[in-house]
Amino acid sequence: MNHGAGERPHLVVIGGGFAGLWCTRALASAPVEVTLVDRANHHLFQPLLYQVATAGLEQESIAYPVRALARSWKGTSFRMGEVSGVDFAGKRLLLGDGELFYDYLVLAAGSRTNFFNIPGVEQHAFDLKQLTQAEELRNHILLLFERAAREPDPLRRAALLTFVIVGGGPTGVEFAGALRELTQHVLSRDYPEVSPGETRIILVEAASSLLSAMPPELREYAAVKLRDMGVELLLNTRVVGADAGQVTFHDASAIQSRTLFWSAGVAAAGLADRLGVAQGAAGRVVVHPDLSIADHPEVFVIGDMACLTQADGPLPMMAPVASQQGRYVARVIIGRERGETQPPFRYIDKGAMATIGRSSAVAAAHGFRFSGYLAWLVWLVLHLYYLIGFRNRLLVLMNWSFYYFFHERQVRLITGDDDHR
Amino acid sequence: MNHGAGERPHLVVIGGGFAGLWCTRALASAPVEVTLVDRANHHLFQPLLYQVATAGLEQESIAYPVRALARSWKGTSFRMGEVSGVDFAGKRLLLGDGELFYDYLVLAAGSRTNFFNIPGVEQHAFDLKQLTQAEELRNHILLLFERAAREPDPLRRAALLTFVIVGGGPTGVEFAGALRELTQHVLSRDYPEVSPGETRIILVEAASSLLSAMPPELREYAAVKLRDMGVELLLNTRVVGADAGQVTFHDASAIQSRTLFWSAGVAAAGLADRLGVAQGAAGRVVVHPDLSIADHPEVFVIGDMACLTQADGPLPMMAPVASQQGRYVARVIIGRERGETQPPFRYIDKGAMATIGRSSAVAAAHGFRFSGYLAWLVWLVLHLYYLIGFRNRLLVLMNWSFYYFFHERQVRLITGDDDHR
Repeated sequence: MNHGAGERPHLVVIGGGFAGLWCTRALASAPVEVTLVDRANHHLFQPLLYQVATAGLEQESIAYPVRALARSWKGTSFRMGEVSGVDFAGKRLLLGDGELFYDYLVLAAGSRTNFFNIPGVEQHAFDLKQLTQAEELRNHILLLFERAAREPDPLRRAALLTFVIVGGGPTGVEFAGALRELTQHVLSRDYPEVSPGETRIILVEAASSLLSAMPPELREYAAVKLRDMGVELLLNTRVVGADAGQVTFHDASAIQSRTLFWSAGVAAAGLADRLGVAQGAAGRVVVHPDLSIADHPEVFVIGDMACLTQADGPLPMMAPVASQQGRYVARVIIGRERGETQPPFRYIDKGAMATIGRSSAVAAAHGFRFSGYLAWLVWLVLHLYYLIGFRNRLLVLMNWSFYYFFHERQVRLITGDDDHR
Repeated sequence: MNHGAGERPHLVVIGGGFAGLWCTRALASAPVEVTLVDRANHHLFQPLLYQVATAGLEQESIAYPVRALARSWKGTSFRMGEVSGVDFAGKRLLLGDGELFYDYLVLAAGSRTNFFNIPGVEQHAFDLKQLTQAEELRNHILLLFERAAREPDPLRRAALLTFVIVGGGPTGVEFAGALRELTQHVLSRDYPEVSPGETRIILVEAASSLLSAMPPELREYAAVKLRDMGVELLLNTRVVGADAGQVTFHDASAIQSRTLFWSAGVAAAGLADRLGVAQGAAGRVVVHPDLSIADHPEVFVIGDMACLTQADGPLPMMAPVASQQGRYVARVIIGRERGETQPPFRYIDKGAMATIGRSSAVAAAHGFRFSGYLAWLVWLVLHLYYLIGFRNRLLVLMNWSFYYFFHERQVRLITGDDDHR
C-alpha cells in the first residue's frame, strides 16, 4: 500500500454498469475513498434497452444518475470522463482531461458489440449498448413506417418493412418478439396505409437453435412461440455482408431490408486492448481467481471485460456475473486492508431467462424450467427488482400495464434529426 | 368548390400544434377529408418544454403521437413531411417528397425564435421550440456542472456556472425559476464540488419590468419572488452581441457565461416568408376577420403564423389564441359547405399566467388577480388539463409530485453526444 498510515486508500472504479456500481455500493461504508469514473453520467439498465427501441419505455426510465446514488454513499465521488489508458507502474489512471492516482483500480468498462469484421455490418447495422442507440433505432423504425405509408413502389416498400435481426440469443429473441408486437398490435392501427401482412421480421441465427444457453425444451418453446407470432426464423444461417439496402448470407442468398439489427456477438470494451495485458477470447482480460491481473495485485478487472474460466468454461458476459464480481472485489479490497485473504471468486448461477412477448417467456434456474405466463411474471418481477430507483420502477410498471391492458405503446415518437440510414 | 358533387372536400392542415390539431379535431365528424401534415410525428406541448430542459420532465411526457389521435378521428389521415411551398392557383401543397391537392388549406406552422439579427446570438444562444432542443439544453446544463466540478481556474469556473436568460416574458421567468430550483435544490446535492453560491442565474429584460402583459402588482410579485430565490434581474438592459464565452449589453458591459438562453422574441415560421402574401410584424401573415387570406377564401392562416388585429392590437402569439382559431376555422369550413357564413373571429381572453417556482405563480383572468400558492395550483391543473393523453398526465403529475415532496428531479441525464457549445 503506498498510502500513508492512517490515510484512507484511494480506489478508482472505471464504469458505472452492473460490475462497477455494485462494487462501489458494497464499499459505501468501508474505510476507502472511492472515485467512480464513467463517460456517461448515469447507470444504464441495459437488459431493457430493447424496450426503448421498440417504443415501450421512455429512455429516462431505464437510466439513473450516478451522482444521485453516489451522494448517499459515504466516501464516494463521481468523475465523468473518458479513460485513455492506465500507467500501472505509476498507479495513475489517464483521462481525456486529467489523471487520477489510485491505490486500487477496478476496471469494469463493460463490452462493445462484436461485428466480426464482416463487410458492411459495422457501418450499416444497429446495435444496442447505449441509450442514444435505442432512441435512434426507435426513430428509424417509425420513420420507415412513415416512408412506407407513402411509398407506391412495391419492392422499395417491402424493403422498408423488412427487419433483419441477427443473433438468436436473449437480446435477439426479446427484440424480435417486442418488434413483432409493436408492428402487429400498435403500428398496424397507426398506419392504415400499411397492411399488417406487409411487415416481415426475420431472426437469423448461425447455430441450429435459438437461446443456445437454455435447455432444449425452452429453445423449442421460444422458436414455436416466435413462429406463432409471425417472426420468420432463419437458423443455420450466417451473415457474410451488408449494405444500406440488403443483407447477404453464406449461401449467397440475400434479403432486401433497410434495417439490420446485430446482436450476434460481444467483445470486451476497447479499453481492454489499450492496457497491454494478457487477453482471452473476445478481447477479455485474463484475470486471477481473485479477479486481479498478473503482476498487479492492486488492479482488478470485472464484469464483461474480465475472462475468468471456471468449470463450464469462461464465465458468460452477463449482468449477474458482473454484479457478483463487483461485490466480490469489494470484499477482497476490504479484506486486504485488514490483512485478510478471500477465497477465490465463484459464480453462483441463478439461471437465465428471456421474454418472448406479452405473457410469454422462458426461464431456467436451479434445475427448474418455466415457460409461458409464469416465466413471464418472474421475468417482470426480477427486472423491476434490479432496476434502480423507485420512480423508474413505477414508470416501467406503468408502461407495462398500459401495454398489457390497452395494447398501447405510447413512446412512439420520432425525435431528433433525420434518420441517417 | 372544385370538388365534384357528392365528393367530400379535401382539407389539408399544416402543423400539428395547438392551432392545427384543434382545427383537425373539430372536423373529426364533419363531411370533409382531412390530411394533417407535420414535419414531426407528434403534437408537442410547448408550454412545458422548459421543464424538460431543467430535468423536471422526460421529453416523452409532453409529446403525443399524431397518428394515435388521428386514427380515432373519422376521415383524418396524417402525412409526415416538410412543406416547401404552396401553389395557390393550382390548389396544390408542395412537400419535400411529393404534393397534395386541396379544396381548403389551413396553414398553422407556428413560430420560430426571433434573434433580431443581433451578432452571434443565433449561433450561440439556446432557445426552446422543439423537443430535441430541450434535451440538448438539459445535457448542456448538466455537462457544465460536470466540467465546473473539476475546473480549478476560478474565472473559467464562474463562466461555466453563470446562466444568462434573455427575455422577461413567461418563458424567461418560468425557465429562470425552474433553473434556479434545479441548481439550488437538486444539483447542489449532486455536486459537492460546487458550492450553491457559485451558481449565478441572470434574467435580462429590455423593458423596465418582467411579464409586461400582466397587471403591475403581478409583475412586481414575480420580480420580488425571483430575487428572493436568488435570480439576478437586469431590467432596462438590451443584449447587443454574444459569442461562445460572453454576452455583451447595450452599455458595453459584458457577462462571462457559457449559456445564453433566448426567449426575447418570436416570429412567424419560415413558411410565411415563402408564401408571397402580405405579412405584418414579425413576419406574420395578414388575415381577414374570418382568418382567410386575400384573394384565396379557401386558404386560412391560424395560430402564431396569423396576424389578426383586434381592439387591443394584434392578437398575441400564444396557445389559447391558436386553439380558439383552430376551432373557429373548422366552423367556417363546415359552414361554407352548407352555404352558411360565420361571424368574424373573436378571441376570448381567458387570462394569462406564469409559474415562478414551487408553490408560486401569477395569474390574471377576468379581472381577477392571483399570486402565490393558489395561482400555482390553478397553473398545475390547467397545464395538466391541456396536456394530451391520460398517460402523459399521469407521468407529469408523478414527476411534479416527486419534485414537490422529495425535491428530486430525476431526469438529470446527459444523453446524446458531446455538447457542441
